[in-house]
Amino acid sequence: MPQLGLLHGRAWASLLGKLLRPPGAVCIGAVHSHSQVAEAVLVSQLKPHQEKSNFIIKTPKGTRDLTPQQMVVREKILDLVVSCFKRHGAKGLDTPAFELKEVLTEKYGEDSGLIYDLQDQGGELLSLRYDLTYPSSLTSLCEVPFARYLAMNKVKKMKRYHVGKVWRRESPTVVQGRYREFCQCDFDIAGQFDPMIPDAECLKIMCEILSGLQLGDFLIKVNDRRILDGMFAVCGVPESKFHTICSSIDKLGKMSWKDVRHEMVAKKGLAPEVADRIGDYVQCHGGVSLVEQMFQDPRLSQNKQALEGLGDLKLLFEYVTLFGIAEKISFDLSLARGLDYYTGVVYEAVLLPTPAQAEEEPLNVGSVAAGGRYDGLVGMFDPKGHKVPCVGLSIGVERIFSIVEQKMKTFGEKIRTTETQVFVASPQKNFLQERLKLIAELWDAGIKAELLYKNNPKLLTQLHYCENMGIPLVVIVGEQELKEGVIKLRSVASREEVAIKRENLVAEIQKRLSES
Amino acid sequence: MPQLGLLHGRAWASLLGKLLRPPGAVCIGAVHSHSQVAEAVLVSQLKPHQEKSNFIIKTPKGTRDLTPQQMVVREKILDLVVSCFKRHGAKGLDTPAFELKEVLTEKYGEDSGLIYDLQDQGGELLSLRYDLTYPSSLTSLCEVPFARYLAMNKVKKMKRYHVGKVWRRESPTVVQGRYREFCQCDFDIAGQFDPMIPDAECLKIMCEILSGLQLGDFLIKVNDRRILDGMFAVCGVPESKFHTICSSIDKLGKMSWKDVRHEMVAKKGLAPEVADRIGDYVQCHGGVSLVEQMFQDPRLSQNKQALEGLGDLKLLFEYVTLFGIAEKISFDLSLARGLDYYTGVVYEAVLLPTPAQAEEEPLNVGSVAAGGRYDGLVGMFDPKGHKVPCVGLSIGVERIFSIVEQKMKTFGEKIRTTETQVFVASPQKNFLQERLKLIAELWDAGIKAELLYKNNPKLLTQLHYCENMGIPLVVIVGEQELKEGVIKLRSVASREEVAIKRENLVAEIQKRLSES
Repeated sequence: MPQLGLLHGRAWASLLGKLLRPPGAVCIGAVHSHSQVAEAVLVSQLKPHQEKSNFIIKTPKGTRDLTPQQMVVREKILDLVVSCFKRHGAKGLDTPAFELKEVLTEKYGEDSGLIYDLQDQGGELLSLRYDLTYPSSLTSLCEVPFARYLAMNKVKKMKRYHVGKVWRRESPTVVQGRYREFCQCDFDIAGQFDPMIPDAECLKIMCEILSGLQLGDFLIKVNDRRILDGMFAVCGVPESKFHTICSSIDKLGKMSWKDVRHEMVAKKGLAPEVADRIGDYVQCHGGVSLVEQMFQDPRLSQNKQALEGLGDLKLLFEYVTLFGIAEKISFDLSLARGLDYYTGVVYEAVLLPTPAQAEEEPLNVGSVAAGGRYDGLVGMFDPKGHKVPCVGLSIGVERIFSIVEQKMKTFGEKIRTTETQVFVASPQKNFLQERLKLIAELWDAGIKAELLYKNNPKLLTQLHYCENMGIPLVVIVGEQELKEGVIKLRSVASREEVAIKRENLVAEIQKRLSES
Repeated sequence: MPQLGLLHGRAWASLLGKLLRPPGAVCIGAVHSHSQVAEAVLVSQLKPHQEKSNFIIKTPKGTRDLTPQQMVVREKILDLVVSCFKRHGAKGLDTPAFELKEVLTEKYGEDSGLIYDLQDQGGELLSLRYDLTYPSSLTSLCEVPFARYLAMNKVKKMKRYHVGKVWRRESPTVVQGRYREFCQCDFDIAGQFDPMIPDAECLKIMCEILSGLQLGDFLIKVNDRRILDGMFAVCGVPESKFHTICSSIDKLGKMSWKDVRHEMVAKKGLAPEVADRIGDYVQCHGGVSLVEQMFQDPRLSQNKQALEGLGDLKLLFEYVTLFGIAEKISFDLSLARGLDYYTGVVYEAVLLPTPAQAEEEPLNVGSVAAGGRYDGLVGMFDPKGHKVPCVGLSIGVERIFSIVEQKMKTFGEKIRTTETQVFVASPQKNFLQERLKLIAELWDAGIKAELLYKNNPKLLTQLHYCENMGIPLVVIVGEQELKEGVIKLRSVASREEVAIKRENLVAEIQKRLSES
């Protein structure tokens, strides 16, 4: 399975080795970061001919520029995610950044205050694409535009991925990697198929991506909305309280059972004995044997919905065993997931702390990937209510970005922000023309090359530039070389130089680059 | 130089061969397109429990979903563009989709009605990233966020590229590939350098990209704002009319000189003899010899600004000659480019019709890439007015997308929307388990693989799926194979089947894929 190659093979492995050690153990200098500078708010004095006197130069609240360092990390992570989606036969799809306000608000009644609306400038009322958040849960914001796309085009079957920005008017908690603008990576399978095969593939994809990213050990919690609803019913939760009790249960990752129980009883008015019955279930987690156990459960086995959910989970466990990922999957009766539109299996991947991390402050990053089955959503957008069953997942790339960035900052690892392979230099004055001719030859051969934009730069300045930027090769042209029809090729690391015939230069560079 | 590989080498070359024939010559069926369907406006009947009765399912005016077919074309084009930017040592940068309203409106006074504002929901006033348009000119919308970034972070030197969406509340003219939401690809070099070296590199980049895209022959028109201003001054245009006359001149690509002259004289009140003097200049275009000729021009040579511009153009021609692209560059005194913030050289690439096309309706796609030098923009955002000279270019990717899409539609070329390499099939019932085990093995080896989500699909259905989707290889497992410890490997094109030992299967597939 392909793995994250942010740096060259060994360098990344060495970095990841460091990343997995407890934080604070190593610190080799500071990463150069524009984003700290970007926090500063500057007051601009405009020139006299402009009317407004002062304005503040900053990015909007909760947003940020992504520096070249951040872009490199992102690109590598997104490449790994997208190539996994493609490995599973997904097509790409993109939808506009904004939708008709109705399309979004029909779905997100109560939380629509978090949606960015566009100003009414005449014409349609629009809102930016949005992700519905429940505390501690990752949600799949592209599902609404995807469902709208399927209904609008009467598409009955589609496996697609979508990478894009979304926006949410939340109080930004920067530490947790939550911004008002963020990137989302979704994979969904729409269509009527035999049960649990696509669902199992979604879990396989989550495993491939999380293994590939080498973020450490992880676990995927699995539950089913029908089991959850059945459990509430057999425990005696009034149907009117399903939603609010569900959101209490959702906090179990962050709060102890005792506190959750208190919230349900004292704040939400649940009978204590009902809460205790729920407690017996939601503290259970395990493998396929727990599914079998629940089939035998005297109360749960009386509930038709729950039995359907359990039957599907049993099949799911059979398939994930064939996929070789059963040990990563945990049936967890406390997994609620916030979204109302899930109708069957739901899942959420969490990173597990290493033993060393568990001793210190645990990372507490919440889930890094999540999803589930939503068979009713497309029908809500279809004029005749035709349903298209869907199952999908969302990779929490922003959280993954911030985990990787934070660790890199801690370990002061330097990231190359350019991919330049060859630098074109001259030790003598008046060689700009030769440098320009030479670099054009390299570019035309597809070689990534740079030179200094100076007529007569010093050789030392040129070589320093290569060292600072991590450029591995330098070609040097001077009077002597020109006379002899050669170019000097220098390795920046070893400082070795060899003279190469001008006509063989490109081939020799390509050979060296393919070997490294 | 790398070229666009949308399809496999030969297939693409053959398609491009067709593309370059006059339109309408060949038509092999219709391309499957969701976007036509997407034009339909559906009225949705919501379910009774929802309050709103009807709403329209559509994308907002001037926007569209990008179908998998479109995404494939886009991805290939963007990959080519971005890898060219990286070949020239550029770093990636990203800025938020919205900026403080002030940041944008300080720049775009009169046209700010085209900016999408976000609704005032408390807090900052925000607007979506915007691109200032002048008729027939491409503009580089990321320049404002880029200048804001440089000023805010006091960055004095940077070579960066930026690919992102931008929004503009224009009347959408879909035919020309103009939408209210579109993708932008910018490359800019900021910093104080020796004259014209980065400027020449920008032209080289435009040539590499346009050659790589194989869109046909092209030309890059070059002028300099100082030459234009000098020309207006020596012709006797009152300074108050520079701007409006400039925008008339800008129409020369689309209108004849006679019509432009009429507009300047009859509508804009320019003296006829002044218009005629302008006419003598703006109808000139040529190579470096025209630069020399203008140096000798009795009027223009008296203007200090114009002489500076001519001196720089002379140097630019020297450098583009060294880069081997001089025959693509045309000094064109009619090139105005709309944006006020250009301070030096400006350029615009246009596709040239083939002789056959020139006879029929010319394509009239306007410019496909453009840019220029803007030395004052960053200083407008800097509190102390510190300037950072910049030069850059913008690739008109939306126009390029629509040219390629339109031609593909014309020629009915089928595009693969997935990259699946191997399909896992079985001719018998009850082989789902084996298929799942087998496909997991392929995925884990990094092979792109699919199967049907059915317990017992028919073999013919499975093989048809491969043919429809263009999947080149099928692995087949059945009772016989299981008994013999082999897997059948079938080539979809030749229908040849060979039995491969199970343990050698992955290696054999990888060998075949690397050969194809």
